[in-house]
Amino acid sequence: MDFLGIEDEAFLRGKVPMTKQEIRILALAKAHITPDSIVYDIGAGTGSFSIEAARLAPQGQVYALEKNAEAVSLIQANAEKFQLENIVILHREAPEGLEALPNPDAVLIGGSGRHMEEILDIVTEKLPEGGHIVVTAITVQSLMQCISYMRAHKGNYQYDAIQVQVSRLEKVGSYDMAKALNPIFIVTCVKGAF
Amino acid sequence: MDFLGIEDEAFLRGKVPMTKQEIRILALAKAHITPDSIVYDIGAGTGSFSIEAARLAPQGQVYALEKNAEAVSLIQANAEKFQLENIVILHREAPEGLEALPNPDAVLIGGSGRHMEEILDIVTEKLPEGGHIVVTAITVQSLMQCISYMRAHKGNYQYDAIQVQVSRLEKVGSYDMAKALNPIFIVTCVKGAF
Amino acid sequence: MDFLGIEDEAFLRGKVPMTKQEIRILALAKAHITPDSIVYDIGAGTGSFSIEAARLAPQGQVYALEKNAEAVSLIQANAEKFQLENIVILHREAPEGLEALPNPDAVLIGGSGRHMEEILDIVTEKLPEGGHIVVTAITVQSLMQCISYMRAHKGNYQYDAIQVQVSRLEKVGSYDMAKALNPIFIVTCVKGAF
Amino acid sequence: MDFLGIEDEAFLRGKVPMTKQEIRILALAKAHITPDSIVYDIGAGTGSFSIEAARLAPQGQVYALEKNAEAVSLIQANAEKFQLENIVILHREAPEGLEALPNPDAVLIGGSGRHMEEILDIVTEKLPEGGHIVVTAITVQSLMQCISYMRAHKGNYQYDAIQVQVSRLEKVGSYDMAKALNPIFIVTCVKGAF
Repeated sequence: MDFLGIEDEAFLRGKVPMTKQEIRILALAKAHITPDSIVYDIGAGTGSFSIEAARLAPQGQVYALEKNAEAVSLIQANAEKFQLENIVILHREAPEGLEALPNPDAVLIGGSGRHMEEILDIVTEKLPEGGHIVVTAITVQSLMQCISYMRAHKGNYQYDAIQVQVSRLEKVGSYDMAKALNPIFIVTCVKGAF
Repeated sequence: MDFLGIEDEAFLRGKVPMTKQEIRILALAKAHITPDSIVYDIGAGTGSFSIEAARLAPQGQVYALEKNAEAVSLIQANAEKFQLENIVILHREAPEGLEALPNPDAVLIGGSGRHMEEILDIVTEKLPEGGHIVVTAITVQSLMQCISYMRAHKGNYQYDAIQVQVSRLEKVGSYDMAKALNPIFIVTCVKGAF
Repeated sequence: MDFLGIEDEAFLRGKVPMTKQEIRILALAKAHITPDSIVYDIGAGTGSFSIEAARLAPQGQVYALEKNAEAVSLIQANAEKFQLENIVILHREAPEGLEALPNPDAVLIGGSGRHMEEILDIVTEKLPEGGHIVVTAITVQSLMQCISYMRAHKGNYQYDAIQVQVSRLEKVGSYDMAKALNPIFIVTCVKGAF
Repeated sequence: MDFLGIEDEAFLRGKVPMTKQEIRILALAKAHITPDSIVYDIGAGTGSFSIEAARLAPQGQVYALEKNAEAVSLIQANAEKFQLENIVILHREAPEGLEALPNPDAVLIGGSGRHMEEILDIVTEKLPEGGHIVVTAITVQSLMQCISYMRAHKGNYQYDAIQVQVSRLEKVGSYDMAKALNPIFIVTCVKGAF
């Protein structure tokens, strides 16, 4: 049985920054992935989203797009570690490469590399009604690019944005000390949901 | 297909306070519920945890314990609304009633009514190795009761505590205004995990 | 002796939203107000910032601009309650009215009413080198308007932005329950500080 | 003119952990220090609280107690850097050393070294009515020790506890990335205030 919410330590990650477990759980729950979903993971980083998505969609397919070569190797290594064969890794900087892919049911955007608008334009063409886009952003600019796009395309999307700040209580002797993780914005966009 | 993460608005809730969607998602993901799990939902409130747990465990069984009569009715109404037949509602104040239940695989504690220690004592007897307890707490006292118990029973448990603060961006005309939800502590305790 | 950090309950506030004590303390500390400072309080609301600023600048002068008539009355009432004679209240929607004022040493912007850029343009003309602008924002759009302005005027300003989220532990019987206040962005801009 | 809220970078700090600027500002504002206050800084660390307190109390006196030798040197160095002569540094682990000091008007407790109760017992004897204790805590145990003490001494104190979580927007090229600081509990206790 595969649970949503793999521990961070279970991933191979090198020096590539990785979204933390709690944010992965929330973003993936909000993406409404089904067992046969086609999922894009854009700016896939270590592949932690792709791994969790591939487990939620064992009869589906995950397309992981990542521009950084070191990160691409990590996605490959993580896919092997978790014995997942339904992840296709593309060493591409989105939106490049998206056009040729089968239409997605869910799109995860963790890194947009300053191409948020172009990415959303292509995704909008390909995403069916009821499909979900979930953007995780650590910068206010990425957040705003996504929100501004959704506000400009009200006819196509409903969006819902949250900010999540998790602190972990680390054990220091007989004390539990709160250590903050960086706050993350999660924007969930549903196509034609109105 | 049933997703983890039902929208708050989908529950009937009257005036009973309800844990918010993001906290439910995280607590349930951390509880490692499987399709045939036996789950206790202690201090079940509106039953929102029970409903989500019952969907994750379609071949299992959820036992919802709740002392407040109005809340008991809401759990019943929500179980009917979501057409779930694997929820047994007990109008009891835990630990009362726990003894007679089949052993659990996962225990959710949302309200302990000042009986945290007694509840954990009984649960400890009944929970198998590898079983999970997930406590959600809004007060620092409940958090400490749980942490102190776990520190005093190091031979039995490993615990991991986080605090989660979610803000929702509410749309006010062309602006998105951050509205805070109360921060919640989530303590995940795994029996014999070392 | 007048302390920075008047309790929220000490202000008359009607139904006008008011920035909370902790945010007032931080914003005012970051504004570097001296005893003879000229201060603008733009979008003054209940006047809570103006009152605290007027106490920090007993030989200076505070100009409170506010478009809402009910709020203007509250500022007046609060100035009387705290016996402050160095607050000039202007029933105006900024930037209207700013031109005629003496040059400021510190500018507090709590509400910009969609005129952030025009307000900052005029303030930039009037603010001397070393002068401070402190913007408090509850919407991501106001935050971005301020940040974008500062990034576009790098030759004039250095800015520093934080987000602050305060929770108050409310006493409920023998428990202390965390109640969240909305997170606020505070942007501190110093003219010619490089 | 000395402002409350010295920049973190202005302090010499070696490897000694230091409370961040925003927390210092809030704790000091809540301590109601006057120009002639006697202030204790218990668990003084780098001395950042002592420095700010000494500037708020130019005719008063600050007693900095610190058990760690490296930290004691830093307090000395910071007092010299900020040219403050009203700080007495005691290389002691509180409550040791407190008995002999003149009665305080305000007591800052940043580190209690597991002696919270004894420290509060002695401080309670020496603090006059209307005096303030401000405890900053990063662990939930320190928070609870303080809150439990205050609840057990309701005849002597009123307390008010908050949790503050600050994130700083770091500039990364044309983006502003939210970096979290650890959440801190601040408990303000006023003697005989009822």
